[in-house]
Amino acid sequence: MSQYRLEIRVKPRPGLLDPQGKAIHHSLNSLGWDGVGDVRVGKVMYIDIEADSETSAGEAAEAMCRKLLANPVTEDFEISMIEALEGAGS
Amino acid sequence: MSQYRLEIRVKPRPGLLDPQGKAIHHSLNSLGWDGVGDVRVGKVMYIDIEADSETSAGEAAEAMCRKLLANPVTEDFEISMIEALEGAGS
Repeated sequence: MSQYRLEIRVKPRPGLLDPQGKAIHHSLNSLGWDGVGDVRVGKVMYIDIEADSETSAGEAAEAMCRKLLANPVTEDFEISMIEALEGAGS
Repeated sequence: MSQYRLEIRVKPRPGLLDPQGKAIHHSLNSLGWDGVGDVRVGKVMYIDIEADSETSAGEAAEAMCRKLLANPVTEDFEISMIEALEGAGS
């Protein structure tokens, strides 16, 4: 078993209202950044997973997103492998 | 002027308490994922910026992080260029 660190990004689906993004957009404009267009805000999670392989760590992360981490109606998610921690490759 | 889309990830500094990460860790364990170690939760922002060049878009994003998007005491940030939108290169 090896330890893997994954980065999971969960973001609002295109076209859906994103009030937090709107608020940040407005604040940036107020602070003088006129060149800012659309702003979307989501969550990023860094999860350490113990798994047999990189593939099975990714599959576990996908299952976690479907079951808990992302709202399947309003959010999309993306998973990236950040690094293999100690024990990887053994 | 060109449009650039940047991804900004803001995350709690290592060693600082992350209650949201702890809650997710606990939930994942309860759902049967025993192999999950540390979980850290941050924000990811997708910002469209109009700028002269990729470099100046990145500099603007960094200034935004220092002034508004990240808490300099408790959070770290990372900026990546996602894509150059219409008008880029002209």
